[in-house]
Amino acid sequence: MTSRFTELAVDCADPDGLAGFWCAVLDYEVLDKHEGVVMIGPKAIPDDGSRGGPVPPVITFAQVPEDKTVKNRLHIDVSPSDRDQAAEVERLIGLGARRADVGQGADDSWVVLVDPEDNEFCVLAGRRP
Amino acid sequence: MTSRFTELAVDCADPDGLAGFWCAVLDYEVLDKHEGVVMIGPKAIPDDGSRGGPVPPVITFAQVPEDKTVKNRLHIDVSPSDRDQAAEVERLIGLGARRADVGQGADDSWVVLVDPEDNEFCVLAGRRP
Repeated sequence: MTSRFTELAVDCADPDGLAGFWCAVLDYEVLDKHEGVVMIGPKAIPDDGSRGGPVPPVITFAQVPEDKTVKNRLHIDVSPSDRDQAAEVERLIGLGARRADVGQGADDSWVVLVDPEDNEFCVLAGRRP
Repeated sequence: MTSRFTELAVDCADPDGLAGFWCAVLDYEVLDKHEGVVMIGPKAIPDDGSRGGPVPPVITFAQVPEDKTVKNRLHIDVSPSDRDQAAEVERLIGLGARRADVGQGADDSWVVLVDPEDNEFCVLAGRRP
């Protein structure tokens, strides 16, 4: 092993608000809050047997002064785990997500949404266990 | 569970090249290549016992026509797993990363680099098991 992907860092205007949205999306919880940076992650990060292997990254939200101006170069894709894509999209819209047009094709299997700060993300069609 | 963070999607100019860089950074391998999208992930994704819990996301690289124009709103943080930060930074620079100034403080514990397509990422100081 060399480096591990341990954090996905998100610049934002409202760390608490955006962390709350993504906790609701992913069933994560706030793990740490330090100097304005809010860190969220799975409620049960494996803490023993899997230490030798890959772990899911936490997500951190840090306030920055600049606004989002262009489509993000990196984005999160999520996969519904316990319902179909349409039902999950409705749930996410209820949480504050909105549908977005980034030029996707009508036949694409994924649904493009934006979070409350206009960060694009996709809801994939296939359930991944 | 509801949605899972299963993919981090990266827009880029050269999917193969950037996937190769990140495979070398993270000790990942190419898991799939389909319609120009290269997917990389851990060599040993847990495939049984951990299905009920969080899994590390794969990373996909898709070619887009537009260039990167501003500092990315989302970025990857990596943590050295088997060497100290300085040694890992040297290794990453050897792979094609470059040091970058995004306004970080002189006392910050992390080192800011960019990948071969100028995507910012940080090398954290603390080793996470």
